[in-house]
Amino acid sequence: MNITNSNPIKKGLSVFALGGLFEIGKNMYVIQYDEDIVIIDCGSKFPDESLLGVDLIIPDISYLIEHKYAIRAMIITHGHEDHIGAIPYILKQLNMPVYGSRLTLGLIKGKLKEHHLNQTVLHEINAESILEFASLNLSFFRTNHSIPDCLGVVIDTPEGRVVHTGDFKFDLSPVNQQFPDIHKMASIGESGVLLLLSESTNAERPGFTPSESVVGEHIHEAFQRAENKIFLTTFASNVNRLQQVVNASHKTDRKIILLGRSMVNVVKVAMELGYLNVPEDMIIDAKEADNFPRERITVLCTGSQGEPLAALSRLASSTHPLIAIDEGDTVIFASSPIPGNEKSVASTLNHLYMLGADIIHGSGSATGMHVSGHANQEELKLMLTLMKPHYFIPIHGEYRMLHQHRILAQSVGVEWDNIFILRNGEVLDIVEKHAVQSRQVTAGNTLVDGFGIGDVGDIVLRDRKHLAEDGILVVIITLSRQENALLSGPEVITRGFVFVKESEELLNVVSKLAMVVFEKLQKSGNDWKWSQLKNNIRNSIGKFLYTETRRRPMILPIIIEV
Amino acid sequence: MNITNSNPIKKGLSVFALGGLFEIGKNMYVIQYDEDIVIIDCGSKFPDESLLGVDLIIPDISYLIEHKYAIRAMIITHGHEDHIGAIPYILKQLNMPVYGSRLTLGLIKGKLKEHHLNQTVLHEINAESILEFASLNLSFFRTNHSIPDCLGVVIDTPEGRVVHTGDFKFDLSPVNQQFPDIHKMASIGESGVLLLLSESTNAERPGFTPSESVVGEHIHEAFQRAENKIFLTTFASNVNRLQQVVNASHKTDRKIILLGRSMVNVVKVAMELGYLNVPEDMIIDAKEADNFPRERITVLCTGSQGEPLAALSRLASSTHPLIAIDEGDTVIFASSPIPGNEKSVASTLNHLYMLGADIIHGSGSATGMHVSGHANQEELKLMLTLMKPHYFIPIHGEYRMLHQHRILAQSVGVEWDNIFILRNGEVLDIVEKHAVQSRQVTAGNTLVDGFGIGDVGDIVLRDRKHLAEDGILVVIITLSRQENALLSGPEVITRGFVFVKESEELLNVVSKLAMVVFEKLQKSGNDWKWSQLKNNIRNSIGKFLYTETRRRPMILPIIIEV
Repeated sequence: MNITNSNPIKKGLSVFALGGLFEIGKNMYVIQYDEDIVIIDCGSKFPDESLLGVDLIIPDISYLIEHKYAIRAMIITHGHEDHIGAIPYILKQLNMPVYGSRLTLGLIKGKLKEHHLNQTVLHEINAESILEFASLNLSFFRTNHSIPDCLGVVIDTPEGRVVHTGDFKFDLSPVNQQFPDIHKMASIGESGVLLLLSESTNAERPGFTPSESVVGEHIHEAFQRAENKIFLTTFASNVNRLQQVVNASHKTDRKIILLGRSMVNVVKVAMELGYLNVPEDMIIDAKEADNFPRERITVLCTGSQGEPLAALSRLASSTHPLIAIDEGDTVIFASSPIPGNEKSVASTLNHLYMLGADIIHGSGSATGMHVSGHANQEELKLMLTLMKPHYFIPIHGEYRMLHQHRILAQSVGVEWDNIFILRNGEVLDIVEKHAVQSRQVTAGNTLVDGFGIGDVGDIVLRDRKHLAEDGILVVIITLSRQENALLSGPEVITRGFVFVKESEELLNVVSKLAMVVFEKLQKSGNDWKWSQLKNNIRNSIGKFLYTETRRRPMILPIIIEV
Repeated sequence: MNITNSNPIKKGLSVFALGGLFEIGKNMYVIQYDEDIVIIDCGSKFPDESLLGVDLIIPDISYLIEHKYAIRAMIITHGHEDHIGAIPYILKQLNMPVYGSRLTLGLIKGKLKEHHLNQTVLHEINAESILEFASLNLSFFRTNHSIPDCLGVVIDTPEGRVVHTGDFKFDLSPVNQQFPDIHKMASIGESGVLLLLSESTNAERPGFTPSESVVGEHIHEAFQRAENKIFLTTFASNVNRLQQVVNASHKTDRKIILLGRSMVNVVKVAMELGYLNVPEDMIIDAKEADNFPRERITVLCTGSQGEPLAALSRLASSTHPLIAIDEGDTVIFASSPIPGNEKSVASTLNHLYMLGADIIHGSGSATGMHVSGHANQEELKLMLTLMKPHYFIPIHGEYRMLHQHRILAQSVGVEWDNIFILRNGEVLDIVEKHAVQSRQVTAGNTLVDGFGIGDVGDIVLRDRKHLAEDGILVVIITLSRQENALLSGPEVITRGFVFVKESEELLNVVSKLAMVVFEKLQKSGNDWKWSQLKNNIRNSIGKFLYTETRRRPMILPIIIEV
């Protein structure tokens, strides 16, 4: 790649996002003082259906590549995909030391192994760690979220103190007894926060998010009522919820079967690292299910979002090779559909009802089987009150969430003019306590497709979209240029356009049309260019097909000279 | 088409669906006694994203084509797309007389005109009409729904009485004073109903759907509060809601601008036919907006589902050529997102917030700006109670809705064994009051793509999906077969696979691989077949590309013989 210094470093403190603003996911924030850079998080997000064939979206890190000499560390706040998902792809472009808590690193290690990345140096930190990187001193505080071992980050710079909350909620009765560091947060705020970056996911939701322990009570009640097998689906990474399923299974004398790759993987890592306590012999293989009565089986499975290849979808369509959902079994969705997944969840539900299962589902709060991992409005106000920031950047969210968070911040006393809603790449520069937002660095989406990182761009996607809509029609003409004569063809081949067997007549006309176009040029002498022939074929066949079929297949004229 | 008599007619009463069961939309029900057929509704539905390039899904009417001699009439219950959307496509295959109420026919006429269908005979009916078709006598009753002029259908047969509710709710204080025919329904039930088909859309929702007039109160309040322009979006066909917007605009002295093709169309038809009363001079052109102060403008627009090309989306992205949403304007969503549209609605909301508009949105019930047009559980129970059917088929819904409706029917006294959950094509035969479900007629999805009805099938869709994921790679080899020699190529052309300029090296290797494959066959003598060469090219290049890129483009080897 040809790097020009289009993103010059400015002296003083600069803060910006390479991902996570005006979007959900792909989180990556940069804190820079002079020539010292600390990166916070390295997330991915899933493409929407317009990005055909794309597997993953990760941040464009042109800025980091240009200034790699200044990078001191990548800090990961917690182990969710929108915070760790891009790590292997980013490290392939630019290696750097990665810091995270024990569980976070456990999940990252699995990813690095998959990608055969052995050179990365991982540093384990916890809420008590202190790191010094030239002008930047880092410390941490413990938060609660829907995965254990989450950290907020404090960065002390010569200009003042910057705080990044990561994802958080205030769970005052957490399942794992890892209480939020409220006293530490108070003390951080007391000693002065220049700039706070706080997450905005639930900024539109009033009130205070219920504690995860509430879910445990509902799971326990449902387990006591169930008379046959129980299938429970939830996000695999919600280890505290898994612990509550383990506890309820233990109390009702059930064995646990794990189904789904990520479920098996997270349980393994969480057990090894001590985040999940499972009685010995409790986890059995699906093949052993028949050795136990129906009322002694819990199946913990992936698929809460109706993902077509996940364990629950296969169970719902009775295509799982090892175990079946029978009439009278209980299926619990300990989850809410993520926006965009409502239809696939509904489809899974229909199939489960057809099996005659008792189903507990709903928006989560209705059934008590799910609580959010994110702070609602009163918790966001509590964080803002504890930190008392001079400047504030709402992060993690689409515009309307950032906008609501701004209104919340003002309501607890942050001055409106000191609140900055930024887009990815827009920089907040703070010099002598004075904040200015006036410049921009390169930021954007890098698309991952198979092994390719960033090689699928607008042209390829536009072609895929065209091909997806109406298919392709290839016209091949073989010429002897010297003789200005046709040797073979025009041959017409189509894919994804019409059912060929029923459209022979149409395709014959297309072939004749191409012939007419050629003969016209042929008669005009020897002066014509191939591009003329190609354009004329495209235009004339395109018009004809649209008139006949109201479709616009991609028309690919190929001229072979012999 | 080559029709064989695969769907023989059975004597007696037969009832089945060609669309509308185990799905939302595409409604079409068949009531048949001996050789007399009445069809109820003729709806379409939208394809999901897996049906690439498909415009619309309509019922497969093979059965009707086979038995066209028996068809007496098509009755349309109301003017929504899921009940009228397939009419032009079905009539192109099979003409028949169509019966509907005045507004319903008004909307159908527009469709027939668009499709240049002049031969169809339309018969206007109302709740008092009585129709006689050989052994079938039809009468009707008035219901409420989110479009005016809805009918329930009573079909008296020699076997007994069949009732089809159409879509309905019980709105006891309807905006247009068209009260539901409860006394008539009671009398229909009193005189004995053999079989009821009742809609199930909201069978999972408890309670009683609020009256449409509740929405009017909230619209009125919002209009009184608004100090600048008001943009209100709702389903164009909800004429009673449009009336309430007209009333609120009148009371607050606002002119109305209509934006969006379907809004303009429905308002025109509804005004002409007397379903919508608008004071003279109230509707102005968007170009005239500047002649009025901001607080005297209401914009009634399409786009409540975030459809990318609808008026509201263009307003939100500031690309509407005639009018703009300014800071302080009010935007009202008098609608709920239909499942599957949540993400596009959220995207529209983000843009609207960026414009600084005051936005009233939410699940509808939360803001009071929307009520459902469908009966909730207590209303479904009321209909079942009024009709007291001996047999019951829940219709209009996915399985879980039909299943819930079955439970409701049992709770009001219908015997469990007399309730039939059918799939499209599954027939309920009733002979001498005895119902049997044992046979099946042809039913399914016919896909409409451009002018093509049913010509896009599995093969074409599979190819489009393949092309959409990873594009296409064409390999052309020109041979002299007589000489067993290569004349030109292998030439490699790709679209939608990789960005060609950055992948020259990769494509060179592909070309060389094709050459190796050819030379190997060439050396083997003159005996090889073209299909061998094609298969070997496909396999060897396919493997190579997957190893190198983890992508599987469609590989299309073309051999030209000169």
